[in-house]
Amino acid sequence: MQRTYISDIHRWQDRTVNLNGWVQRLRSLGQVNFLLLRDRTGTVQVVLNNEALADLELTTESVVEVTGRVVKESRAHGGYEIWGDSVQLLNTAEPLPMNINAPQLKATLDTQLNHRSLSLRHPSNQQLFRLQSALVHGFQEFLNAGGFLQVFTPKLVAGGTEGGTELFSLQYFEQKAYLAQSPQFYKQTLVGSGFERVYEVGHVYRAERHATARHLNEYVSLDLEMAFIQDEFDIMALETRLLQSIFESLRVCHGDLLESLRIDLPVVGAAIPHMTMDEALTVLREEFGRSDLRDDLDPEAERLICHYAKQQWNSEFLFITEYPLHKRPMYTMPKGPASSASFDLLFRGVEITTGGQRIHNHGQLVQAMQERGLDPTLFGDYLEVFRYGMPPHGGLAIGLERLTALLAGRSNVREASLFPRDRHRLTP
Amino acid sequence: MQRTYISDIHRWQDRTVNLNGWVQRLRSLGQVNFLLLRDRTGTVQVVLNNEALADLELTTESVVEVTGRVVKESRAHGGYEIWGDSVQLLNTAEPLPMNINAPQLKATLDTQLNHRSLSLRHPSNQQLFRLQSALVHGFQEFLNAGGFLQVFTPKLVAGGTEGGTELFSLQYFEQKAYLAQSPQFYKQTLVGSGFERVYEVGHVYRAERHATARHLNEYVSLDLEMAFIQDEFDIMALETRLLQSIFESLRVCHGDLLESLRIDLPVVGAAIPHMTMDEALTVLREEFGRSDLRDDLDPEAERLICHYAKQQWNSEFLFITEYPLHKRPMYTMPKGPASSASFDLLFRGVEITTGGQRIHNHGQLVQAMQERGLDPTLFGDYLEVFRYGMPPHGGLAIGLERLTALLAGRSNVREASLFPRDRHRLTP
Repeated sequence: MQRTYISDIHRWQDRTVNLNGWVQRLRSLGQVNFLLLRDRTGTVQVVLNNEALADLELTTESVVEVTGRVVKESRAHGGYEIWGDSVQLLNTAEPLPMNINAPQLKATLDTQLNHRSLSLRHPSNQQLFRLQSALVHGFQEFLNAGGFLQVFTPKLVAGGTEGGTELFSLQYFEQKAYLAQSPQFYKQTLVGSGFERVYEVGHVYRAERHATARHLNEYVSLDLEMAFIQDEFDIMALETRLLQSIFESLRVCHGDLLESLRIDLPVVGAAIPHMTMDEALTVLREEFGRSDLRDDLDPEAERLICHYAKQQWNSEFLFITEYPLHKRPMYTMPKGPASSASFDLLFRGVEITTGGQRIHNHGQLVQAMQERGLDPTLFGDYLEVFRYGMPPHGGLAIGLERLTALLAGRSNVREASLFPRDRHRLTP
Repeated sequence: MQRTYISDIHRWQDRTVNLNGWVQRLRSLGQVNFLLLRDRTGTVQVVLNNEALADLELTTESVVEVTGRVVKESRAHGGYEIWGDSVQLLNTAEPLPMNINAPQLKATLDTQLNHRSLSLRHPSNQQLFRLQSALVHGFQEFLNAGGFLQVFTPKLVAGGTEGGTELFSLQYFEQKAYLAQSPQFYKQTLVGSGFERVYEVGHVYRAERHATARHLNEYVSLDLEMAFIQDEFDIMALETRLLQSIFESLRVCHGDLLESLRIDLPVVGAAIPHMTMDEALTVLREEFGRSDLRDDLDPEAERLICHYAKQQWNSEFLFITEYPLHKRPMYTMPKGPASSASFDLLFRGVEITTGGQRIHNHGQLVQAMQERGLDPTLFGDYLEVFRYGMPPHGGLAIGLERLTALLAGRSNVREASLFPRDRHRLTP
């Protein structure tokens, strides 16, 4: 007999269906038993007499197959309940180390992550990762429609994009290899290889020793790169349209998720406000008394300037442009003597994107390396495409877990990773 | 002025457009010059007088911006040419180390891979990777529609799925870590975490020392796993529908790619033929004299049995079922005393999928580990979900580069990887 999902039972009123799922709760009232059954689409109450349960030991979270009739019941959640004929036990569950069927998970984040297979069963986490998947789908669909090619570039590399800091290293047969800290060199190479527009959804690795609520050592980067831009504002305009499109698809296709996660989608205006780093520093000094900042924003400054943007322009997004060149990687396109054609995008107080125009002239790139004390001969593979016709180009990267956490109002980026990897955590 | 793609110029007849791209060829006939311009959508001939070229040194593969009028010209490829007004040089190209504008790339595969940013510019490679991206898109869309959740699981893991062989290892701060050889444990955990149906498109790592035309040490695995199956035939039926859907979307949406790559799409019947390993061994012995095979197929046997399936059932696909249990990983569901509920899918002589039902009972899984000499205490994190209600489940993995190469008739899987990683290659 074909399985029916709980969300579909209303189509089968007064008929017998076969349901599969987990025992969320079982209450016995003399001759009658009430089993709350959960599958990936929802929950339903199954009414069973003692004979149907027989000798089954249905512990919480046991896996069962239920056969029964769909009965309209206005008092039931969803408007239907099941009058069960039989229950088959597919797999038992031992007593749980944490309560996962309360309205809110009460265990500490560390306990939740230690028992990830359990904490993920909580509806709030089921929905959070459905939201994350929808974000990725929105990213992919917008870029597919825009002629971007989805690519997969190596994470095992011979060198870092920045010369070797904060890299995990390993032995690759006879050679030393590193885990890629970004697909930067590869997406640039592919733009120059004639694809012009590429994107990648993939892991990146940072061997950073700090342990904060906004850093992971392995995370999913939503990367894109495109050729034939005029300047960084082309990339910023693309990201604006991209975010509009992602949020619109969430609104249209995933209203249920937004509602159950109580998410207020941010409004992305026709243009996201932008200010230069110098302007931001002036505001921070004059409005918030932060006269200690020189050429970068710390986490508190990011929160303050986002607060300012919300007050001033009613925007939860803010581009900071013209980052000081010396704070940016060597491939960053300069703008004037000390500034750069690069930007960050802040959202609800946190940086979620770094992007900008890149250098496309071979000589200029070699010189930029030398000015930073990097040896161009170590970047021979990367430099090749710049010798054989590299178009003007730029791109950006969005941190998936950060975007997910900020949207859903989770305070720690680990919550938005199925199996986070941090300074101390390599399991489960 | 907005850029126009070469594939769109027919919409702009007799009007002035702005084109961006690479100089594929430049011929001069006295006062007139013929520049063959290429962008990611195609090529077009630009007719220029000497003044328009001025002093520009337009070497092959230089990057230019061309402004000119679209003129109908029946003799031109595509029916139009551009009467150029002006050319702007955006970036120069040095003399190329290999000829990339011949009908066929003549350089050895090694040379092509060494100069990947150049060899990828050849139309055959542009198309190959558009095909690959379309395959992934077809995989994603079929599974999205089927309620599968796209997930991202860690590639930095504390142990191997098989106990530590053929793993790349690295230092993860104070701990020893490995690169995941498969998302197997994680996709099972997520199935048991209530998502029921998950898929992942991601890298996997095999530290295998052999260097063959069908192995990579880093490749993209199309993985899926689903709960509440009856047996491995549910997974095989799903893969059949999946392949039908992918090829149908190629046929409908990417006819141009199929034509230019000269791909004959395989026909996937309502059911792909299947035979047990025992049956396959019998055929190989009786039809092909291969009496040396015991409990597995070697590459030649895979080719022969595919040949047989083509002759017998006119199918380019063949499932081999009931692999001997001892040839399969410990999580494989047994079938009878020595066989297993697992399968391979062969396509055009090569294995492209391994899949099957998995053990879902905790005690049975622990015993399976012990029978193989694996210490269950080393698999504590993996085993947790089996203690708290794991449904019957199964899944499969498809090697993306193999599928791509086989479809396009490329003899070496490296050709179907943008930047392959093999026994000796870690660059570019």
